[in-house]
Amino acid sequence: MSIFSYLLPKKEKSASVAKERLQIIVARERSTRGGPDYLPQLQEELLMVVRKYVPVDQDAVNVQMDRESGCEILELNITLPEQE
Amino acid sequence: MSIFSYLLPKKEKSASVAKERLQIIVARERSTRGGPDYLPQLQEELLMVVRKYVPVDQDAVNVQMDRESGCEILELNITLPEQE
Repeated sequence: MSIFSYLLPKKEKSASVAKERLQIIVARERSTRGGPDYLPQLQEELLMVVRKYVPVDQDAVNVQMDRESGCEILELNITLPEQE
Repeated sequence: MSIFSYLLPKKEKSASVAKERLQIIVARERSTRGGPDYLPQLQEELLMVVRKYVPVDQDAVNVQMDRESGCEILELNITLPEQE
Protein backbone atom coordinates (compact mmCIF):
# COMPACT_ATOMS: atom_id res chain seq x y z
CA MET A 1 0.00 0.00 0.00
CA SER A 2 1.39 3.40 -0.93
CA ILE A 3 0.96 6.87 0.48
CA PHE A 4 -1.33 7.57 -2.47
CA SER A 5 -4.03 5.55 -0.73
CA TYR A 6 -4.08 8.16 2.03
CA LEU A 7 -3.81 11.34 0.02
CA LEU A 8 -7.06 12.86 -1.20
CA PRO A 9 -9.07 9.88 0.03
CA LYS A 10 -12.56 11.33 -0.07
CA LYS A 11 -13.48 11.48 -3.70
CA GLU A 12 -16.61 13.48 -4.37
CA LYS A 13 -18.26 12.61 -7.61
CA SER A 14 -20.90 14.76 -9.14
CA ALA A 15 -22.53 14.48 -12.53
CA SER A 16 -22.54 18.22 -13.13
CA VAL A 17 -19.47 19.61 -11.36
CA ALA A 18 -15.86 18.51 -11.86
CA LYS A 19 -14.12 20.02 -8.87
CA GLU A 20 -10.39 20.06 -8.45
CA ARG A 21 -8.82 19.54 -5.08
CA LEU A 22 -5.47 20.42 -3.60
CA GLN A 23 -4.07 18.89 -0.45
CA ILE A 24 -1.05 20.21 1.41
CA ILE A 25 0.49 18.24 4.25
CA VAL A 26 3.32 19.62 6.37
CA ALA A 27 4.97 17.20 8.76
CA ARG A 28 7.48 18.51 11.25
CA GLU A 29 9.62 16.15 13.22
CA ARG A 30 10.44 18.04 16.38
CA SER A 31 13.93 17.77 17.69
CA THR A 32 14.36 17.02 21.35
CA ARG A 33 15.22 20.67 21.93
CA GLY A 34 11.82 21.84 20.77
CA GLY A 35 11.97 25.25 19.17
CA PRO A 36 9.19 27.67 18.24
CA ASP A 37 5.97 26.35 16.81
CA TYR A 38 5.72 28.10 13.45
CA LEU A 39 3.21 25.81 11.76
CA PRO A 40 0.14 28.07 12.34
CA GLN A 41 1.87 31.07 10.71
CA LEU A 42 3.31 28.82 8.01
CA GLN A 43 -0.20 27.63 7.22
CA GLU A 44 -1.39 31.20 6.51
CA GLU A 45 1.56 31.92 4.27
CA LEU A 46 1.23 28.66 2.36
CA LEU A 47 -2.37 29.56 1.59
CA MET A 48 -1.27 32.99 0.37
CA VAL A 49 1.18 31.32 -2.02
CA VAL A 50 -1.46 28.90 -3.32
CA ARG A 51 -3.80 31.86 -3.93
CA LYS A 52 -1.29 33.30 -6.40
CA TYR A 53 -1.94 30.33 -8.66
CA VAL A 54 -5.58 29.41 -8.05
CA PRO A 55 -8.54 31.23 -6.53
CA VAL A 56 -9.31 29.84 -3.07
CA ASP A 57 -12.38 30.75 -1.04
CA GLN A 58 -11.82 30.98 2.71
CA ASP A 59 -14.63 28.48 3.33
CA ALA A 60 -13.17 26.05 0.78
CA VAL A 61 -10.23 25.35 3.08
CA ASN A 62 -10.33 22.62 5.69
CA VAL A 63 -7.46 22.68 8.18
CA GLN A 64 -6.43 19.93 10.57
CA MET A 65 -3.53 19.88 12.99
CA ASP A 66 -2.39 16.66 14.62
CA ARG A 67 0.40 15.50 16.84
CA GLU A 68 1.70 11.98 17.05
CA SER A 69 4.92 10.46 18.38
CA GLY A 70 7.11 13.55 18.11
CA CYS A 71 5.55 14.75 14.86
CA GLU A 72 3.34 17.72 14.18
CA ILE A 73 1.16 17.33 11.11
CA LEU A 74 -0.60 20.22 9.43
CA GLU A 75 -3.13 19.23 6.78
CA LEU A 76 -4.82 21.65 4.40
CA ASN A 77 -7.60 20.40 2.15
CA ILE A 78 -8.64 22.91 -0.47
CA THR A 79 -11.53 22.58 -2.89
CA LEU A 80 -10.85 24.67 -5.96
CA PRO A 81 -13.69 26.33 -7.83
CA GLU A 82 -14.72 24.95 -11.18
CA GLN A 83 -12.61 26.32 -14.00
CA GLU A 84 -14.31 28.51 -16.58
CA MET B 1 -2.46 1.96 9.94
CA SER B 2 -2.47 5.75 9.68
CA ILE B 3 -0.87 8.24 7.33
CA PHE B 4 1.70 8.90 10.08
CA SER B 5 3.35 5.62 9.16
CA TYR B 6 4.18 7.09 5.76
CA LEU B 7 5.22 10.59 6.72
CA LEU B 8 8.85 11.12 7.63
CA PRO B 9 9.56 7.39 7.43
CA LYS B 10 13.34 7.45 7.30
CA LYS B 11 14.45 8.24 10.79
CA GLU B 12 18.12 9.08 11.05
CA LYS B 13 19.51 8.62 14.50
CA SER B 14 22.85 9.98 15.51
CA ALA B 15 24.45 10.10 18.90
CA SER B 16 25.85 13.57 18.41
CA VAL B 17 23.39 15.42 16.16
CA ALA B 18 19.66 15.86 16.72
CA LYS B 19 18.44 17.00 13.33
CA GLU B 20 14.98 18.28 12.70
CA ARG B 21 13.13 17.47 9.52
CA LEU B 22 10.27 19.05 7.69
CA GLN B 23 8.23 17.32 5.02
CA ILE B 24 5.79 19.09 2.71
CA ILE B 25 3.49 17.10 0.47
CA VAL B 26 1.27 18.76 -2.11
CA ALA B 27 -1.31 16.53 -3.80
CA ARG B 28 -3.28 17.90 -6.70
CA GLU B 29 -6.24 16.04 -8.05
CA ARG B 30 -6.48 17.11 -11.65
CA SER B 31 -9.89 17.74 -13.02
CA THR B 32 -10.75 16.20 -16.36
CA ARG B 33 -10.22 19.58 -17.98
CA GLY B 34 -6.58 19.70 -17.02
CA GLY B 35 -5.41 23.24 -16.42
CA PRO B 36 -1.90 24.66 -16.08
CA ASP B 37 0.71 22.72 -14.16
CA TYR B 38 1.75 25.15 -11.44
CA LEU B 39 3.33 22.68 -9.02
CA PRO B 40 6.99 23.38 -10.05
CA GLN B 41 6.57 27.14 -9.43
CA LEU B 42 4.55 26.45 -6.29
CA GLN B 43 7.42 24.32 -5.00
CA GLU B 44 9.88 27.24 -5.27
CA GLU B 45 7.52 29.61 -3.49
CA LEU B 46 6.74 27.14 -0.72
CA LEU B 47 10.46 26.83 -0.04
CA MET B 48 10.77 30.63 0.10
CA VAL B 49 8.01 30.69 2.73
CA VAL B 50 9.65 27.96 4.80
CA ARG B 51 12.94 29.91 4.67
CA LYS B 52 11.25 32.79 6.49
CA TYR B 53 10.91 30.54 9.54
CA VAL B 54 13.90 28.23 9.40
CA PRO B 55 17.25 28.33 7.60
CA VAL B 56 17.26 25.84 4.72
CA ASP B 57 20.33 24.94 2.68
CA GLN B 58 19.68 24.28 -1.00
CA ASP B 59 21.33 20.86 -0.72
CA ALA B 60 19.24 19.96 2.32
CA VAL B 61 16.12 19.77 0.16
CA ASN B 62 15.06 16.58 -1.54
CA VAL B 63 12.27 16.98 -4.11
CA GLN B 64 10.16 14.26 -5.67
CA MET B 65 7.33 14.59 -8.14
CA ASP B 66 5.00 11.69 -8.83
CA ARG B 67 1.85 11.03 -10.79
CA GLU B 68 -0.64 8.34 -10.04
CA SER B 69 -4.26 7.79 -11.05
CA GLY B 70 -5.15 11.39 -11.81
CA CYS B 71 -3.08 12.84 -8.97
CA GLU B 72 0.10 14.86 -9.05
CA ILE B 73 2.15 14.58 -5.87
CA LEU B 74 4.93 16.98 -4.99
CA GLU B 75 7.06 15.92 -2.03
CA LEU B 76 9.67 18.12 -0.35
CA ASN B 77 11.90 16.62 2.31
CA ILE B 78 13.95 19.20 4.17
CA THR B 79 16.64 18.53 6.72
CA LEU B 80 16.94 21.50 9.04
CA PRO B 81 20.28 22.48 10.53
CA GLU B 82 20.91 21.83 14.18
CA GLN B 83 19.65 24.63 16.37
CA GLU B 84 22.16 26.66 18.34
